Amino acid sequence: MNYRTRQSTIVGAAAVALLALAGAAFGQDEAAETAEVVAEVSEFAIAADTAYILNTLLFLMGGFLVMWMAAGFTMLEAGMVRSKNVAMQCTKNIGLYSIAGLMFWLIGYNLMYDGVDGGFIGSLGWKVIPDPSDDPGDYSVASDWFFQMVFCATTASIVSGAVAERVKLWSFLIFVAVLTGVIYPITGSWQWGGGWLAEMGFSDFAGSTLVHSVGGWAALAGVLIIGSRRGKYGANGAIHPIPGSSMPLATLGTFILWLGWFGFNGGSQLAMGTIEDASAVSRIFVNTNTAAAAGVIAAMILTQLLYKKVDVTLALNGALGGLVAITAEPLMPTMLWATIIGAIGGILVVIAVPLLDRMKIDDVVGAIPVHLVAGIWGTIAVPITNPDTSFGTQAIGIVAIGAFAFIASLVVWVILRALFGVRVSEEDEINGLDKAEIGVEAYPDFAQNQAT
Amino acid sequence: MNYRTRQSTIVGAAAVALLALAGAAFGQDEAAETAEVVAEVSEFAIAADTAYILNTLLFLMGGFLVMWMAAGFTMLEAGMVRSKNVAMQCTKNIGLYSIAGLMFWLIGYNLMYDGVDGGFIGSLGWKVIPDPSDDPGDYSVASDWFFQMVFCATTASIVSGAVAERVKLWSFLIFVAVLTGVIYPITGSWQWGGGWLAEMGFSDFAGSTLVHSVGGWAALAGVLIIGSRRGKYGANGAIHPIPGSSMPLATLGTFILWLGWFGFNGGSQLAMGTIEDASAVSRIFVNTNTAAAAGVIAAMILTQLLYKKVDVTLALNGALGGLVAITAEPLMPTMLWATIIGAIGGILVVIAVPLLDRMKIDDVVGAIPVHLVAGIWGTIAVPITNPDTSFGTQAIGIVAIGAFAFIASLVVWVILRALFGVRVSEEDEINGLDKAEIGVEAYPDFAQNQAT
Amino acid sequence: MNYRTRQSTIVGAAAVALLALAGAAFGQDEAAETAEVVAEVSEFAIAADTAYILNTLLFLMGGFLVMWMAAGFTMLEAGMVRSKNVAMQCTKNIGLYSIAGLMFWLIGYNLMYDGVDGGFIGSLGWKVIPDPSDDPGDYSVASDWFFQMVFCATTASIVSGAVAERVKLWSFLIFVAVLTGVIYPITGSWQWGGGWLAEMGFSDFAGSTLVHSVGGWAALAGVLIIGSRRGKYGANGAIHPIPGSSMPLATLGTFILWLGWFGFNGGSQLAMGTIEDASAVSRIFVNTNTAAAAGVIAAMILTQLLYKKVDVTLALNGALGGLVAITAEPLMPTMLWATIIGAIGGILVVIAVPLLDRMKIDDVVGAIPVHLVAGIWGTIAVPITNPDTSFGTQAIGIVAIGAFAFIASLVVWVILRALFGVRVSEEDEINGLDKAEIGVEAYPDFAQNQAT
Repeated sequence: MNYRTRQSTIVGAAAVALLALAGAAFGQDEAAETAEVVAEVSEFAIAADTAYILNTLLFLMGGFLVMWMAAGFTMLEAGMVRSKNVAMQCTKNIGLYSIAGLMFWLIGYNLMYDGVDGGFIGSLGWKVIPDPSDDPGDYSVASDWFFQMVFCATTASIVSGAVAERVKLWSFLIFVAVLTGVIYPITGSWQWGGGWLAEMGFSDFAGSTLVHSVGGWAALAGVLIIGSRRGKYGANGAIHPIPGSSMPLATLGTFILWLGWFGFNGGSQLAMGTIEDASAVSRIFVNTNTAAAAGVIAAMILTQLLYKKVDVTLALNGALGGLVAITAEPLMPTMLWATIIGAIGGILVVIAVPLLDRMKIDDVVGAIPVHLVAGIWGTIAVPITNPDTSFGTQAIGIVAIGAFAFIASLVVWVILRALFGVRVSEEDEINGLDKAEIGVEAYPDFAQNQAT
Repeated sequence: MNYRTRQSTIVGAAAVALLALAGAAFGQDEAAETAEVVAEVSEFAIAADTAYILNTLLFLMGGFLVMWMAAGFTMLEAGMVRSKNVAMQCTKNIGLYSIAGLMFWLIGYNLMYDGVDGGFIGSLGWKVIPDPSDDPGDYSVASDWFFQMVFCATTASIVSGAVAERVKLWSFLIFVAVLTGVIYPITGSWQWGGGWLAEMGFSDFAGSTLVHSVGGWAALAGVLIIGSRRGKYGANGAIHPIPGSSMPLATLGTFILWLGWFGFNGGSQLAMGTIEDASAVSRIFVNTNTAAAAGVIAAMILTQLLYKKVDVTLALNGALGGLVAITAEPLMPTMLWATIIGAIGGILVVIAVPLLDRMKIDDVVGAIPVHLVAGIWGTIAVPITNPDTSFGTQAIGIVAIGAFAFIASLVVWVILRALFGVRVSEEDEINGLDKAEIGVEAYPDFAQNQAT
Repeated sequence: MNYRTRQSTIVGAAAVALLALAGAAFGQDEAAETAEVVAEVSEFAIAADTAYILNTLLFLMGGFLVMWMAAGFTMLEAGMVRSKNVAMQCTKNIGLYSIAGLMFWLIGYNLMYDGVDGGFIGSLGWKVIPDPSDDPGDYSVASDWFFQMVFCATTASIVSGAVAERVKLWSFLIFVAVLTGVIYPITGSWQWGGGWLAEMGFSDFAGSTLVHSVGGWAALAGVLIIGSRRGKYGANGAIHPIPGSSMPLATLGTFILWLGWFGFNGGSQLAMGTIEDASAVSRIFVNTNTAAAAGVIAAMILTQLLYKKVDVTLALNGALGGLVAITAEPLMPTMLWATIIGAIGGILVVIAVPLLDRMKIDDVVGAIPVHLVAGIWGTIAVPITNPDTSFGTQAIGIVAIGAFAFIASLVVWVILRALFGVRVSEEDEINGLDKAEIGVEAYPDFAQNQAT
């Protein structure tokens, strides 16, 4: 980054003319030398403004698409819980996105990005956005903050679905404040902040591990501390399915997430001011879509073979599994590799969902299979298509980030349990969290025959 | 605006070379002078094409995001009314957006923007969009019209929610035609059209007053003329809550509005062709998001303190209150000020909702607290962070626009009541507007236990 | 397309200077000649990078907006079928979008675009996306593939709604694979691939015929082979309306489609790197919106006159009819012509819906009136505003594409019927496809009183 990038294109054009005239005056001999200087000066001035604007635009466009994913998680979760808990799920999701937006400003951003320098953590202090008239660099500082913030919020969204239908509202929201203000930024600093994992050569393009697995680990910790929903697991290992209240909302949520993922992965190219960057963003769009499509088809075929029917929730989660899997490396794979990586992501989800149930880990929306399991797969698969990475370093990153995220989350959940409790009373759980915690029912007009 | 901006970058480059050659031919003395001319000529030609495209792109992108807010209002309102009135609400919303799109072309745009010149109104006549091959200026005329039109439509959307569950369909739609064709454009001309308020120094960046309060005043006039819903207010000041039919749809609507607001406020920078503009748009994104987040958190904490529970509808309206509040000045505030302005917006909504009920003003979705009350707050708060404005001028603008919008709306509603009636019969209200006015029920498959 | 477009702007600036110096050295006489060379060289280099990026951006932005239409179709259809078939409809839609994404890569793209050369079909072979460092041309190859793929998927979405509530899941998905891999690409190659229709002067800007009518013909073939829903048509020509389960979801779907259509039509300008292109895209946005608005208002007024009530489903389909109608020529019409073309589109839908019912063609969502009928109208209307086209050639294109799409689809449906059956059993139809084919109900919490 160079202050000269702030100069307008006019300066560059004028410089070309001035130096050309100078060269003409001094004679033919100096022509070659002059041309070099011209090229150097104009390098910054002519192209820089447009590049700044286009890089900023990528952050803004990617950012609003990822922001939209908050609505996607909300609809997915609202559709996957019973109707008596839907208003609660909506409240949690608009709350968590808001908390992430404030915490990532107050603590998170600088902890993740400021002065990490090969280390384990950034600095304390809130993020200051410069005035437009004093915003140097290759892109707007504000656009970068916005883009990074919505990633942080995504991590929190992942937790919300797993602990649904029994978590206490305010305990959950406090957990989100710690997750978005401290836990996510610390593991984030190790890689995207330029910390020790980045120096070691770990690679996670858009966050299969940094976002999705961190969210998955935090969710797993939460589910283990909070316990399974009443009636989910019976005697003798019986597993009682608890169907969600609205498949169209769950489907809408999945489509929103799919759309948002173009911003999630495409925006992570971090620049669109050159032909190479614009081409890379395009390729990322294609691979992202292909992996998701492959995840859907793989999950549909597998569920047809296993259960003789297609389960819509597994088709949806297949898409998400494919998307999470391609997120660690959406640029390097050919479309064939994107298909394979995505298909395996979808298959892993279909396999992991009943596996978790057998371990009595009650994850309402399948957040752990989708974000943690497919996230690990995507991260470990990077060296298949990216020769600059190694399986060993990828494994170190997965384990290190996973250990920190899981243990830190566990500690926070345990403290919250001790201080406020993390689970509603059995009576509240039976009556539904909407009545107990929100005081507004989600669907008051409709007669309900809900499993208690 | 200058016709030279229409020339392609090729011309600019050629001009540089030609003038340089001329300079060389005439000798060293004229070099400096020549360089000046070069700079002047290339100023327009080299950078102008890209700036034109990027400015146009901001209008298009901002425009489609604001267009999407029409869906947001629809979902919010569909979720906040009883199921027997949902199809009506959907019809009203797709109808009003369509009417705005036609009326703002036929009358509105020129009334608002053409030849206002410090005055009180523009000219009569429809908007003509030039051919692409004859579209001069810094941006495409069509992109500007599209962007301004969706703002006009937003104003109408605000009214729809307030008068829900008892207004007659066609009377409402005629009101919308007058609002979008005449009332909104007239008050808009005072400021954005370069009228008397703009000359006085009034400031309303993206329309806390010009869009949101105007919609709020029109809604208030409507509610006063149409009256409260049957059964809402009982004897002895009793207030009977009438819960909405779908909290997830209301939440979806709020997220759509939040997303669209990036286009609403960001696009109102009106340009993205320079570094300063791109940086400003980014900062506006950040402040918009921050104010909304602060509105949510403030509303959630306040409802928890007041009612010992969080009300999801007030959390949602808290987001909207924060968004409306920051709309008058989303660029100048620091993030701390954005937080404060948004939080107060959210708090005002929580306070205003029961206050209106005590005054027996029956606003179904909280449009008046959100758009009128928070809109006044946002407009009056501008001078806190924008030194070029004054509280006095802001107050004059709020009062003048409010008075005109309210009185004009009142007159139209009264005329409509006299001509066609504005309220359905009691029987139709009990049976639901879907049966009475639409002939299609919103949810025919589901047994209903609706409050009559 | 020229390899020189890959050079960076630096080269261009340096070339200007170098050639200027050379000109100076050789003397005044060669000045004019030199300047010409300068202009030629810099033509590519100076503006090309930015144009490449902006063209690519249009494909990506248009692409994600059209991708989002897949969600729009899903919501529209989920709202228009009975609740017992909603999960099936969601599964079909996420499945078909995924299949299109894979088939258009494996076969479709090259069949449509590679080496058609005035003929009837392209080449066999999958599409290879080049590395970002080797991606020549005026735009990224990947961005183009993405944009073309989502159009292909749209065609399949159209079929899904028409055959709803009785088609077998896997037979439908196999049909989609053939439609997106073979049928759509072949008719597409005739025009957009530069085939015989393109050479003849047929014009279909964004696909009223190539996308919408092809989808409509495929749907019509499906409906004829599969037959009408049980109970839809009684004795003596009685027609029993089967109301959809959720009007707000149908409305949401329509708004999503409307939003996506800005990408559908606007992106079909295929370039945004010049002022003329950016202006054209803007005009297309305006005409697209205007035609949709006119379609809504025309449909609402007509249904009010015909049935004394406004039918929300016809208002929604009026918007879609207007959108399909303007799609063949969204650039040339004035706003007045866009209004007329869109209004007629909306009116045709209102007229065609009962007409199809009288012919016992049971199209659940009105896909045939919207996409086929309005698509024909839009295509035949092109010469009204585009002087480079003729009614005769437009008619030839409509008939040729229609005949091929309908007959090919018919053959595929008949083969599928012979091999696997295309219709579920009567028992499954009564119980609902969700139970029979998906094994997950869409709304398990809600008591249902569904028409059997």
